[in-house]
Amino acid sequence: MKTYEYPESKALFARACRVIPCGVYGHFGVPPCIPPDAYPFFAARAKGAHFWDVDGNRFIDYMCAYGPMILGYGNPAVDGPYQAQMAEADSNSAASPRMVELAEHMVDLIPVADWAFFAKNGADVTNLAVMTARAATGRRKIVAVKGGYHGTTPWMQGPGHHGLIDADLANVIRIPWNDVNALERVIAENPGDVAGFISSPYHHPVYADNELPAPGYWERVQSVLRKHGIVFIIDDVRAGFRLHMGGSCEHYGFKPDLIAFCKAIGNGYPVSALVGCDALRNDVARVFHTGSYWFSAGPMVAALATLRELARLDAPALLRASGEKLLNGMVDVAKSHGYTLKVSGEPSMPYVRITDDPTMTLHQQWCGECTRRGAYFTSHHNWFLSTAHTDEDIRQTLDICDEAFKAVKQQHGA
Amino acid sequence: MKTYEYPESKALFARACRVIPCGVYGHFGVPPCIPPDAYPFFAARAKGAHFWDVDGNRFIDYMCAYGPMILGYGNPAVDGPYQAQMAEADSNSAASPRMVELAEHMVDLIPVADWAFFAKNGADVTNLAVMTARAATGRRKIVAVKGGYHGTTPWMQGPGHHGLIDADLANVIRIPWNDVNALERVIAENPGDVAGFISSPYHHPVYADNELPAPGYWERVQSVLRKHGIVFIIDDVRAGFRLHMGGSCEHYGFKPDLIAFCKAIGNGYPVSALVGCDALRNDVARVFHTGSYWFSAGPMVAALATLRELARLDAPALLRASGEKLLNGMVDVAKSHGYTLKVSGEPSMPYVRITDDPTMTLHQQWCGECTRRGAYFTSHHNWFLSTAHTDEDIRQTLDICDEAFKAVKQQHGA
Repeated sequence: MKTYEYPESKALFARACRVIPCGVYGHFGVPPCIPPDAYPFFAARAKGAHFWDVDGNRFIDYMCAYGPMILGYGNPAVDGPYQAQMAEADSNSAASPRMVELAEHMVDLIPVADWAFFAKNGADVTNLAVMTARAATGRRKIVAVKGGYHGTTPWMQGPGHHGLIDADLANVIRIPWNDVNALERVIAENPGDVAGFISSPYHHPVYADNELPAPGYWERVQSVLRKHGIVFIIDDVRAGFRLHMGGSCEHYGFKPDLIAFCKAIGNGYPVSALVGCDALRNDVARVFHTGSYWFSAGPMVAALATLRELARLDAPALLRASGEKLLNGMVDVAKSHGYTLKVSGEPSMPYVRITDDPTMTLHQQWCGECTRRGAYFTSHHNWFLSTAHTDEDIRQTLDICDEAFKAVKQQHGA
Repeated sequence: MKTYEYPESKALFARACRVIPCGVYGHFGVPPCIPPDAYPFFAARAKGAHFWDVDGNRFIDYMCAYGPMILGYGNPAVDGPYQAQMAEADSNSAASPRMVELAEHMVDLIPVADWAFFAKNGADVTNLAVMTARAATGRRKIVAVKGGYHGTTPWMQGPGHHGLIDADLANVIRIPWNDVNALERVIAENPGDVAGFISSPYHHPVYADNELPAPGYWERVQSVLRKHGIVFIIDDVRAGFRLHMGGSCEHYGFKPDLIAFCKAIGNGYPVSALVGCDALRNDVARVFHTGSYWFSAGPMVAALATLRELARLDAPALLRASGEKLLNGMVDVAKSHGYTLKVSGEPSMPYVRITDDPTMTLHQQWCGECTRRGAYFTSHHNWFLSTAHTDEDIRQTLDICDEAFKAVKQQHGA
């Protein structure tokens, strides 16, 4: 099996380092791609479940652009309606009728949604959710889960990041995942001052096993928040439409007040959405929140087409099935080489880790060996399945995993 | 001259109000369009300097989607390269070579720029600028100009907005425009604690005459900031590439440390940029800042094509000339009806106001009468010229202004 080399990618990265901070910054930068030598940093082309890097290497892509490409790259069911809209209007001085149609569609699709608001980034709508919670309650504090990620606006970042000040974090209280007692304690310690609770529907941090809600967790959370008049915000940016078309809360059986969507909503076209319950309609309407491209029609049409195609395919069931097939296969392949692969989170966006090496080097090396053979896996971030991944992709991936285990075994010994 | 009616727009707005907060929110909502009866709220199609609303009415558009459409709607010089890129790759799991090319192009084009960082919203990069200033200095306070707009992230909003808490505003100090003494006073009152100063290159608030920098203002500001090691941030989101291709600071003759661009950079395709000097390269690299669609290749190609086409046309000179032609004509038309039209700001994005009525009703009514006849003007926000506005557009606009003055004169008396 051929192992890839990246001379063009490396040359381009050297050029990038001269004119771009870090060469490639943010979640696309070096940290998710360890060891960096094993990864291509620049992609030239993409189609279906595959992308090709600037050296012409083909990858079966399990990052899906870190979430957006739920229907695969270049899907005509989305690209066709998008292009037709773009020929008419995109950015404009007045809003598009497509915005109303998309809002109506989401209100029909999502039980929690009585209204919808559209922006560009996931963080635009997690920010709006927090502002809405404060407008609605007149309170200050936001409770979030330790390791929970809601974007990179200063208040959302953990201590230890650069460019933050104490005031950014002073009104955010972090509690452990799955800990209703901690939630109640924080509420008691901040009487009448907790505006909102924000969390992903299940816990999908980086560099740690992902965790599902414990039985009864969300019911208890919902009841505690209702009792204290605290706004209940679900950040469904990453998991949204991967577990349930009505929002991940439907999969787990609970009802938040606000849900933030992004990523999978538009199959790569830039749009995000906050939806919410009727009780918060006037509060969100009072908050001033806007951006230069938030009214562009093209991505809204892409979102309408994506949501329709996901429903037509029953994508959540499809992704779960292909995720299970891939992961069961990988665990077996690992076992055949004497390794233990731990899978956590949900099969449609699994977190995978080799448990045999606490230093994580072995795991990183294995991910790198997979990538070098054409299965693109980052090492400490959950992966993403798309509806474009075929049985043949999975079969090839398992072959690659097999070869990759042989390669790390050779380097590390048994 | 026909005056427009908006039955379809109104019906759609009624539908929108059921599923979208405010029907149309943010800067696209009702406030910039007063009286609301005079404005179409939904656009169906656009080309060149014109858009058509859902009722089929055609408008000569002087809002340019609130800034982005500097080369006009559907410009093939931008759309062609964009579509070619989209056929290959857009959102992806690795960055695009186009990101490096765009950064190299901006570093060549903009004297202040030693590096470039790309995002989606203007606020993404004004936020990054502030985080970078804090990372670089270890200080907390940001000085901004009263009425200056840098996005809707909580710290950027003025008091009186909803959903903010005191902590959001506690580290932002507002000073009057053109007031170096106030800047020096604030620095003295916060010894060693001012991280950055952020301002647009000239003052373009809403609901107030726009103001140019006083002679010597920027030189003095630059020297004061350098003396105290304070990071100098220019928010060129609105004016960028309208006054000078090297950034508006080149037009006024000064050198900030960081410049935030958005709007005109991609002719409507969603991309924003922060560029900066070499001294801040390591500081910006330490800040964690990212978003779901920040690495999409399509809008970066659009930005490259837009910047090249703007330079080819010498757009800043072109916009100034057509702006002056329009504005001189409008002032004359106003005078012929006995009204005084005050023009402020720069001709390529002028702020216009009838001075004869302190209640602003007359001005609002006149803008509305223009819009109803096909020249789209909002009443209390600066307008935008594009390179697509022709002499014939301007001639037609002046005819419309003439009719609109007759209409308001009839209603208000002489």
